[in-house]
Amino acid sequence: MDDIMAFETVALDDENSALVIIDQTKLPGEIKMLHLKTQKEIRDAIYLLQVRGAPAIGVAAGYGIYLAAKALDTEDYQTFLEGFRTAKEYLNSARPTAVNLSWALNRMEQVVLDNADSSIAQLKKLLHDQCEAIKAEDVAMCRAIGEYGLSLIKDGDGILTHCNAGQLATSRYGTALAPIHLGREKGMNFRVYTDETRPLLQGARLSAFEMAADGVDTTVICDNMASQVMKNGWVNAVFVGCDRVAANGDACNKIGTSGVAILARYYGIPFYVLGPTSTIDMSIQSGDEIVIEQRPAHEVTEMWYARRMAPEGVKVYNPAFDVTDHELITGIITEEGIAYPPYSESLKAIFERKNEKMHK
Amino acid sequence: MDDIMAFETVALDDENSALVIIDQTKLPGEIKMLHLKTQKEIRDAIYLLQVRGAPAIGVAAGYGIYLAAKALDTEDYQTFLEGFRTAKEYLNSARPTAVNLSWALNRMEQVVLDNADSSIAQLKKLLHDQCEAIKAEDVAMCRAIGEYGLSLIKDGDGILTHCNAGQLATSRYGTALAPIHLGREKGMNFRVYTDETRPLLQGARLSAFEMAADGVDTTVICDNMASQVMKNGWVNAVFVGCDRVAANGDACNKIGTSGVAILARYYGIPFYVLGPTSTIDMSIQSGDEIVIEQRPAHEVTEMWYARRMAPEGVKVYNPAFDVTDHELITGIITEEGIAYPPYSESLKAIFERKNEKMHK
Repeated sequence: MDDIMAFETVALDDENSALVIIDQTKLPGEIKMLHLKTQKEIRDAIYLLQVRGAPAIGVAAGYGIYLAAKALDTEDYQTFLEGFRTAKEYLNSARPTAVNLSWALNRMEQVVLDNADSSIAQLKKLLHDQCEAIKAEDVAMCRAIGEYGLSLIKDGDGILTHCNAGQLATSRYGTALAPIHLGREKGMNFRVYTDETRPLLQGARLSAFEMAADGVDTTVICDNMASQVMKNGWVNAVFVGCDRVAANGDACNKIGTSGVAILARYYGIPFYVLGPTSTIDMSIQSGDEIVIEQRPAHEVTEMWYARRMAPEGVKVYNPAFDVTDHELITGIITEEGIAYPPYSESLKAIFERKNEKMHK
Repeated sequence: MDDIMAFETVALDDENSALVIIDQTKLPGEIKMLHLKTQKEIRDAIYLLQVRGAPAIGVAAGYGIYLAAKALDTEDYQTFLEGFRTAKEYLNSARPTAVNLSWALNRMEQVVLDNADSSIAQLKKLLHDQCEAIKAEDVAMCRAIGEYGLSLIKDGDGILTHCNAGQLATSRYGTALAPIHLGREKGMNFRVYTDETRPLLQGARLSAFEMAADGVDTTVICDNMASQVMKNGWVNAVFVGCDRVAANGDACNKIGTSGVAILARYYGIPFYVLGPTSTIDMSIQSGDEIVIEQRPAHEVTEMWYARRMAPEGVKVYNPAFDVTDHELITGIITEEGIAYPPYSESLKAIFERKNEKMHK
């Protein structure tokens, strides 16, 4: 892996003329940086999952709408606003259900609306600052999660992770993998075990790639090998991401996460969920309220393979996520600190702390 | 799956002139019966894993050496014995470490040695009877395991299994899947969940095939989905095979089995290990004495895939088996009955019962 240099998931080039991303559909076989200039190129990159992960999509959308606005050749505000909105709608159509996509686009639009008296040149400058701010906030959030996570492990530890909640899903550091990347910056070493994470193999393809690219001692295992790896005494902690956390601490994440948590409990290994406070949904009381997305059978039986690997006609159960019971979770690590059981109290306290900060 | 008729894993054709097997390397995409007549065809089938599973290999070897002996064109005993031994050595070289292969060939040779006074025609008849006996004993053993297993479940139950310890690995019924096949004969129905069983996918390719071929309501899941399937309340019992069982009940089986056992314990689901008494090794006190075979990385990163699915250069941990702690096992089901904890006593009792029978 020596030839893999440090990469950024999503960034502007030096001339602020192109969005530069690593093409995640080509990983891990090929490291291909894309320089995207047109609206169509940027929308396609989001649509085709060349950039993926909620935070990374939000940042890419911010950069994308900035580049589109920058290319608008007018000095008239109304014409500019109309052009901006057309581009916004176009980019937003890439993944209509991705909350971070529309969130970032709306935040950029607000800059245009709030500064109707500014010159177009000034507006373009403000938009540039705003999209860089979106990214900087994402980096700061991931870094804070990383700092809290890093406080729980020590140099040389073995960490097991599932799926990819890493740098490739954010602007930098990631969430579940942030402590590892941050530790590397500080000169620490870890042994990381990446569950391959069937059926879409995000662990084998993405987590293993970004860990190895950061010089981490990385071992890919099939999901069903986690029990043996833990039994061998190789795992000091489990770090996983989350898609949604309920008020009682139940954590919805990639399918298979709950199984890893049960194994960790059996072997007496701490199990941590890492994610921004934005994924904690205090409006749902428990994971029972979360509806699990069911995905198509071909992901299990045919996708990736040279030939079909299950008989035609058999049923396939392919849930995208599962819910890990809060009783199995040692701690929930956010950018505002670590919540410990009982989560119904500690998560509330985290939000109170966050609100206090915002109103200072 | 309506076009898949009942199949036999290994059999002689009606004229006793060919060994008929289902080509397991073509499953599940293609159902291809092979009619093997020459020594080379039969040896190749064993070598290429067109027939696999310890009991099935033993039966195939018995039929194979019978067909080779039948083709010997001599009336002289010494010439016949020499020809027999040449064929035996040749077939035995197909998989030198497969115990059942040499066991079956030695048993066939003993027939020739014990009947030196018989005519060659009589010898060929005795050899035919012996290889059919090897198969009949295998069927009877699997059937007995199936009867005991079936006594633990009821019509309509959901059964989860891992890997393939089914009819495709034996002459008929299988071990872990014997209760299902036997129940089908009695008109019962079950819902069977087959872990796909990475990296070699025996669950998706083989167990799902033979379950569906027997008309069973079959659902393929990725290994990491077992937790969710159990949580859904869909599983009444787990049935798995075994490669070796220690005197204390620790059971070595396909990698991932121990993880399934831990999940079953967490969700309060009974977990049964099914296998013949020949896999119980009373000479080892616990699973700690079993050395786990490590397999090559490419099985995880490349095999089956259209392209490589993990970065070049990362490490891969690929153990073929794991050991399930006896404390996680609800019962061990053999052809001589069901052993319950404490296994150090119940397994001993099973062997005492077996020895008594043999000396009656």
